[in-house]
Amino acid sequence: MSNGDTPRRLRLGMVGGGRGAFIGGVHRIAARLDDRYELVAGALASDPDRAKASAADLHIARDRAYGSFAEMAAAEADREDGIDAVSIVTPNHVHFAAAKAFLEAGIHVICDKPLTTDLSDAEALAGLVEQTGLVFSLTHNYTGYPMVRQARDMVRSGALGEIRVIQAEYPQDWLSTKEEDADNAQAQWRTDPTRSGPAGCVGDIGTHAYNLARFVTGLTLSEIAADLHTFVPGRRLDDNAHMMLRFANGAKGMLWSSQVSPGNENALRIRVYGEKGGLEWSQEDPNYLTYSPLGEAPRLITRGGPGANDAAAAVTRIPSGHPEGYLEAFAQLYTETADMILAHQQGAPAESLVPNVSDGVDGVRFITRAVESSGKGGGWIAF
Amino acid sequence: MSNGDTPRRLRLGMVGGGRGAFIGGVHRIAARLDDRYELVAGALASDPDRAKASAADLHIARDRAYGSFAEMAAAEADREDGIDAVSIVTPNHVHFAAAKAFLEAGIHVICDKPLTTDLSDAEALAGLVEQTGLVFSLTHNYTGYPMVRQARDMVRSGALGEIRVIQAEYPQDWLSTKEEDADNAQAQWRTDPTRSGPAGCVGDIGTHAYNLARFVTGLTLSEIAADLHTFVPGRRLDDNAHMMLRFANGAKGMLWSSQVSPGNENALRIRVYGEKGGLEWSQEDPNYLTYSPLGEAPRLITRGGPGANDAAAAVTRIPSGHPEGYLEAFAQLYTETADMILAHQQGAPAESLVPNVSDGVDGVRFITRAVESSGKGGGWIAF
Amino acid sequence: MSNGDTPRRLRLGMVGGGRGAFIGGVHRIAARLDDRYELVAGALASDPDRAKASAADLHIARDRAYGSFAEMAAAEADREDGIDAVSIVTPNHVHFAAAKAFLEAGIHVICDKPLTTDLSDAEALAGLVEQTGLVFSLTHNYTGYPMVRQARDMVRSGALGEIRVIQAEYPQDWLSTKEEDADNAQAQWRTDPTRSGPAGCVGDIGTHAYNLARFVTGLTLSEIAADLHTFVPGRRLDDNAHMMLRFANGAKGMLWSSQVSPGNENALRIRVYGEKGGLEWSQEDPNYLTYSPLGEAPRLITRGGPGANDAAAAVTRIPSGHPEGYLEAFAQLYTETADMILAHQQGAPAESLVPNVSDGVDGVRFITRAVESSGKGGGWIAF
Amino acid sequence: MSNGDTPRRLRLGMVGGGRGAFIGGVHRIAARLDDRYELVAGALASDPDRAKASAADLHIARDRAYGSFAEMAAAEADREDGIDAVSIVTPNHVHFAAAKAFLEAGIHVICDKPLTTDLSDAEALAGLVEQTGLVFSLTHNYTGYPMVRQARDMVRSGALGEIRVIQAEYPQDWLSTKEEDADNAQAQWRTDPTRSGPAGCVGDIGTHAYNLARFVTGLTLSEIAADLHTFVPGRRLDDNAHMMLRFANGAKGMLWSSQVSPGNENALRIRVYGEKGGLEWSQEDPNYLTYSPLGEAPRLITRGGPGANDAAAAVTRIPSGHPEGYLEAFAQLYTETADMILAHQQGAPAESLVPNVSDGVDGVRFITRAVESSGKGGGWIAF
Repeated sequence: MSNGDTPRRLRLGMVGGGRGAFIGGVHRIAARLDDRYELVAGALASDPDRAKASAADLHIARDRAYGSFAEMAAAEADREDGIDAVSIVTPNHVHFAAAKAFLEAGIHVICDKPLTTDLSDAEALAGLVEQTGLVFSLTHNYTGYPMVRQARDMVRSGALGEIRVIQAEYPQDWLSTKEEDADNAQAQWRTDPTRSGPAGCVGDIGTHAYNLARFVTGLTLSEIAADLHTFVPGRRLDDNAHMMLRFANGAKGMLWSSQVSPGNENALRIRVYGEKGGLEWSQEDPNYLTYSPLGEAPRLITRGGPGANDAAAAVTRIPSGHPEGYLEAFAQLYTETADMILAHQQGAPAESLVPNVSDGVDGVRFITRAVESSGKGGGWIAF
Repeated sequence: MSNGDTPRRLRLGMVGGGRGAFIGGVHRIAARLDDRYELVAGALASDPDRAKASAADLHIARDRAYGSFAEMAAAEADREDGIDAVSIVTPNHVHFAAAKAFLEAGIHVICDKPLTTDLSDAEALAGLVEQTGLVFSLTHNYTGYPMVRQARDMVRSGALGEIRVIQAEYPQDWLSTKEEDADNAQAQWRTDPTRSGPAGCVGDIGTHAYNLARFVTGLTLSEIAADLHTFVPGRRLDDNAHMMLRFANGAKGMLWSSQVSPGNENALRIRVYGEKGGLEWSQEDPNYLTYSPLGEAPRLITRGGPGANDAAAAVTRIPSGHPEGYLEAFAQLYTETADMILAHQQGAPAESLVPNVSDGVDGVRFITRAVESSGKGGGWIAF
Repeated sequence: MSNGDTPRRLRLGMVGGGRGAFIGGVHRIAARLDDRYELVAGALASDPDRAKASAADLHIARDRAYGSFAEMAAAEADREDGIDAVSIVTPNHVHFAAAKAFLEAGIHVICDKPLTTDLSDAEALAGLVEQTGLVFSLTHNYTGYPMVRQARDMVRSGALGEIRVIQAEYPQDWLSTKEEDADNAQAQWRTDPTRSGPAGCVGDIGTHAYNLARFVTGLTLSEIAADLHTFVPGRRLDDNAHMMLRFANGAKGMLWSSQVSPGNENALRIRVYGEKGGLEWSQEDPNYLTYSPLGEAPRLITRGGPGANDAAAAVTRIPSGHPEGYLEAFAQLYTETADMILAHQQGAPAESLVPNVSDGVDGVRFITRAVESSGKGGGWIAF
Repeated sequence: MSNGDTPRRLRLGMVGGGRGAFIGGVHRIAARLDDRYELVAGALASDPDRAKASAADLHIARDRAYGSFAEMAAAEADREDGIDAVSIVTPNHVHFAAAKAFLEAGIHVICDKPLTTDLSDAEALAGLVEQTGLVFSLTHNYTGYPMVRQARDMVRSGALGEIRVIQAEYPQDWLSTKEEDADNAQAQWRTDPTRSGPAGCVGDIGTHAYNLARFVTGLTLSEIAADLHTFVPGRRLDDNAHMMLRFANGAKGMLWSSQVSPGNENALRIRVYGEKGGLEWSQEDPNYLTYSPLGEAPRLITRGGPGANDAAAAVTRIPSGHPEGYLEAFAQLYTETADMILAHQQGAPAESLVPNVSDGVDGVRFITRAVESSGKGGGWIAF
C-alpha cells in the first residue's frame, strides 16, 4: 500500500461527537483506520463541561478542547499547527453554521449528511466552497464500498447499456415504536423537526438511497412523486416514504425508505437495470455484487475476487473472502479526502469520487422536493 | 392423505392449451398431480386440425376433441358422462366468451387470469356466477403455496398487528428485447393488445403481485398512482410498471412489475410489515417464509418444518426439506376446486381459499385503474 | 413436449405404500406427474385388510388388490392386461424377495433404495436382471434434478478438469430424539436392523449422498474410512456417520450423513472441485447450481435459465424462475423408465441415466464397507 | 464506549510486516482501530535496508527502526519509553526465536499463528510465558468476531445441550495452480517447509478451523485421523486435508481445509450440533449466526440485533445492519490484549478470551498429529 512516500498525518478537529453520540465515534475510527489523520482538537458537545470531558476521553489536549465551534474555528485558524480539516458530526441543524465558520476560517470540511436543513443554506454553502476553493466532503459513506465503486464503474463503462429501471430502498425497523419517548438520544433528534429539518426518514436514510442511485448511475432526476407518512402516533416527522422517480434520460425508478419495517436493520439496497444487464447490491452484505448480463448466467462478483475491477481494487484493503464492512467504507472517504487536502496544499487540487458540496445541495433538493410533493397530495412535481 | 372415502375423479375439459402453448401443460399437470381429475374433452386450439391433433396427444377420445369451445360446451352439457368442469387456458381475450358459454351450460369453470380484458365483462361474469351458483376458480396459482397460506393466516391471526407497509414486486427479464419479433408465441400474444387487453406486464404479472398482496393481507385498495412505461421500442404494451398504493386501513404500498429487468426470472416477492412484525416471501424460493417479530431475531419458517402452521400444513404434500414448487402450488388450486365441485354436487356448497370470480373482478379493476392513472400522467386516482 | 406420437400409458403395480406409508405416495405422484402410468394393481400392505382398503383408496379394482407380492406377481403375469412394471416401495428387507418375484415373472421393476440389505442378495438381483434383460430402475431420485444432470454433464465434458476433491453431505435432524419410541412408523422401521439392514442413517440417506457423488463425477471409490456412531441412547443403528474417501483417480472426498443435527431438514449437498473449477448444489434449493471457473467470478446457473445445458433442459418441465422440486425430480426417473420399458417392448432396449441394478449393488457395497470399516475401528479399508 | 477513564495508548513494536508483506498491514490497522496503540518501533524486514525504508513508511522514528528483532528487543528493553508489546508477524519459522527474545526482555508478545513450527519449541515458549508471567496473545483472529463470541457463549450456557457433532471447514482456492512459481511471496513462504514448517494448508488455515472449533465448543480432542494430500504437482506441502475427529466427551467431528477448491475464497465455516440445537457460522458472512433450537424454526441472529447476547455485545462497535468485518474482529484481539497488558502493569493480571500460548501449543499439536496420522496412512491416532 505504501511506496515510500508516506504523507504526513493530517491534523483533524471535530464538531459534535462527544459522549453519547453515535456517528462521531464512527468518524473517528474512519479517520484513524488508514492512519491518515490525528485528532487534535474538538468542540465535541454543546455543553462545555461535556465537551471538555469528551475531549479528554479522546487524548485531545486541554487547550484544544473548545466550548463552541466558533471558538474552535477562530483559534485553530490562528495556530501554526492548526487543524487541516474539521469533521462536523452534529445533528443536521448545526451543519450549516459550523461548516460556514470553518470554510470562512480557511479550514477544509468533512460534513455529515444531509448538508443542511434548508435548500437556500445548502446553496449558500456551495457558493462558499466555490469561492474559497477548499475541500468539502460529505459523508455519504456508502459510496466508499468497493462493490459500489465497481457498480458505478460498470454503469459508466456501458456494461448495462442505457439504464431503464432503478429500484432503491432503505428500510429499517428501529423506530417501529415511539422510541423517542424512551431515553434514546438518537431517536429524539432524528424525529425532532428543529434538529432534523423538515423530513424524518427521508432525510435520515432516504437521502442515502437517493445519493447511492445517483452515484451509481450518474443519472439526474427530472420528476418525483412522493408519499410520506407517519405511522407511529404522535411522531412529528415521516417514518415511511414511498416515491416514484423519473430520470432525465427516460429511466424510471422507485425509492422506499422506512424506519417502521420490522426485520430490516439497515437494509439499504440498490438494483439497476439497463438494456444489456442488471446489477444488485445490498449494504448488509457489502462484499458481493450480483451482475446479470442479459442472456447469461448471473455472476457473483466479490470484493477482491475475480471479476472485481480497478475501481473496486483501488478502495480494497484486504484479500477477497476477508470481509470489509461499514467502517472500512467510511474510512475510504476520509482517506480520499486526505489525498485531496494534501493535493490542495501542494497547489494541485485533485478530483475524487467522494461526495461533495454539490451532492449535498442535490440531496437537500431531494428532501425538499419529496416533502413538497407529499404535501401536495403525493403527485408528480418537477425536480 | 386418504381416509378411505376416496372421491371419484372429476371429468375435466380444456379450452386452449394445444401444441405450442405453455400454461395448458401446467394446468394439466396440476389437475393430475393429486389424482382428482381425468382430462376427457378439449377444444385445445382455434385451428380445428391442431385441436384434434393436440387432443390425440393427450389421450382424449376422438369424439370429445372439439373444434370450438361453443361446440364443446353444448355437447358436453348433453352427455350423461359430460365434463364436471372446464379449464380455460387461452389468451386473455377469449376468457370472457368461453367462461360465459360453460357457465350457461351449467359447467363449473377454472379460468386463467386475468379474468377478462374489460371490467364490464368481468362484472357480467360475476353476475353469471352468482346467478348459476356454479364453482368458478381463477388460477392465481401463487396463492396455493404453503408459505403463502401461512403468511395469510399469520396476518389474519394478528401476528403482525395492524398492517402498515406492503412491498410487492414481480420483475422478469424475458422481454428485455423485442422477443415478439422472434418466433415466440408467448411473447406475441402477451404484447398484443387485441389478445392481452389494455395492459402488458401489468396484466400478465402485475395482477399476480396485486392478488398476492390482497390474498395475504386481506386489505382493500383505496387509491393508486401508476407509472406504466414501454422501454422496448416498438412494443405495443407496457413492459414496466411502478405504482404507489394506499389501502383503506391506512396502509401504504408499492408495486413494481417489469419484464425488462435482467437477472430476474420470475421474481415475485412480497414483504408485509405491521406494528408487531414483518413477513417476507419470494416465489423463487417458495419453501421459506421469513418472519421477523419486532424486537426478536427473525425466524426462518420452512414448509413442513417447525413453525409451519395448520394453514400451511393443509396444503403440504411432502416433508420439510423436500422442496415443493410451482406445479404443486398450482395443483393445490385444482384440488381445492375439486372439493368445492364435489360439495356442490352433493348440495352442500363449500368455501375455499381459491381465488374466485370476485377476485377476478378485483384484478381487472386493478389493471383498469393502473392504466387509467398512468394515462392521466401517473397521479393518484380513487380505486 | 409432445410430438404427436403420444405413447400409451403403462400399467403399474405397487408393492408397499399403503395407508400410513410415506414414500409410496411420492412414487404414485411421480408416476402420474408426466401422465405415463396408470396404477392398476397393488399389494399395498402386509396386512391383507389394510392392503384391500388401501387399494380402494387408490381406485384400484378389487380383483387387482392383492394380499401379497407373490400372489400379485403370479396373477399379473397371467393377465393379458397385466402390469408392465411394478414399484417396490416397502421397507428395505422386502426389496430383494419382491424384486426377485417380479423379475422372475417377467415384469419390469422400479425399486426404492437401498437395493437390498445384503451384498450377496444385491449381486443375485443383478444377475437376474442381466439374465432376464428386464428394465430395473432404482429410485435414487436426486439424480432426476435438472441441476444435478447439468453438474454431471459439466464434469463429464471437462468443465472442471480432473476432479480433486468431493464433499458430500446429507444431514437431517428428525431423529435427534428417540422418535422410534413415539408412534412414528417411519422412525421405527428405519432404526430397526431387521427391516433396515445393518445400517441406519448410512443406508437411509448416506447412500443417497454416495450415489450422488458417483452420479455427478463418475468416479469410483478405492478406499474408505468410516466412523459410524449412535448418539441417541438405546437406538439400534447408527444415526451419524463420518467418512473419508479415496477415489481411484486420486481424488479425495468426505461424506457426512446425520439424522441428529438440528436445523437440517433434508440438507443433501454436494461440492465438487477440479483443476479448473468448482460446482456446488444443495437439494433444498435445487433450482440453482453454482459454477466457479477458476479465476473467474462464480456463475449462478438456474434451471431453465441462461447457462443451463442440454442435459438440464432435457429434464425441465417449466420455465426458469418457476421452481420445480422433489416430486418433479422423482417423476423424471419414472418418465425415463417408461421410455426404457416401451423401448424394451419394441425390441430396441435404450440406455438412460436412471440409476439401475448395478448402481444398487454399488450402493449396498458402500453400506457394507462403511459398516465394516467402522466395526474395525474406523480405519481405511479397500472398497 | 468511553467512561472518562481513557487509558493511555500502548507503545507497540513490530517484527516483520515490511513492504510486500500482507498480514503486517492487517495487524497495524487492528492495533490502530480502537486507538489503543501507537506503533513506535520495528524490525520490519530481514533485509536491513528494506527494514529502514519500511519503518519510514510507517512514521517510525529512525532510531527505532531496527535491523533485527534481537537488536530491537535489547534496545527497547533499555529505553524508558520502550515498547509495551511487540507484534510478531513474520513467516512461521521466525516466531519461536523472536517471541523468546522479547519474553526474555520482559516485553509482552502478540504473535501470529501457528505458534511455532515444532511442538517442543511451542512447549518451551509456554514455559517461558508461565515463568515470566507476561501477556502472550496468539492472533487466531476469527475468535474476535461477535457472532463467534455469541456461539461460544451459547454452547457454554447449554443452549445446545451436550455437543454431538462438529463440522469445521476452511477451503480456499488461491493455490489451485502452482502460484509459488509466480512472483507471489505469500505463496512462496507458505509452501516452503523451511519457513512454514511441516504442514501447508493444515498449518496455514486448518489450524484456524481447529482453533475455532475448540474456541466455540470448549471440547478437547482425543483422537484424529487425517488424510493430507498435495494435488498441485511439484508442491512441497499439503494443499488439501481431510480429517475425522473424536472428542473427549464423545462428540465426533470432521475438518476440511483446502487451498485448491475453486470458488472458495476464505470460506471458514463451523457448524455445531448438540442434543438440543444447532449453530452455524460462516466467516465470509460474519454478522450472522443461525441458531436452530430442536423443534423450533431457525433464528437468524445478527450482530447487534435482537437475539445478540452480552458476549457478542461486548465486542460490537456499531449498530446492527452496519456490517463489521475481518479487521474489526482482528482489532478486538488487540484491544483485549491492551486491557490485559494494562492490568498486568497495574499488578492485577486479568483474564480474557484472546487465544494465548496454551492455545498455541494446542494448535501446534494439532498440526503435528495431523501430519503424523497422514504419514502413517491416515488412520486414527491418539491426540
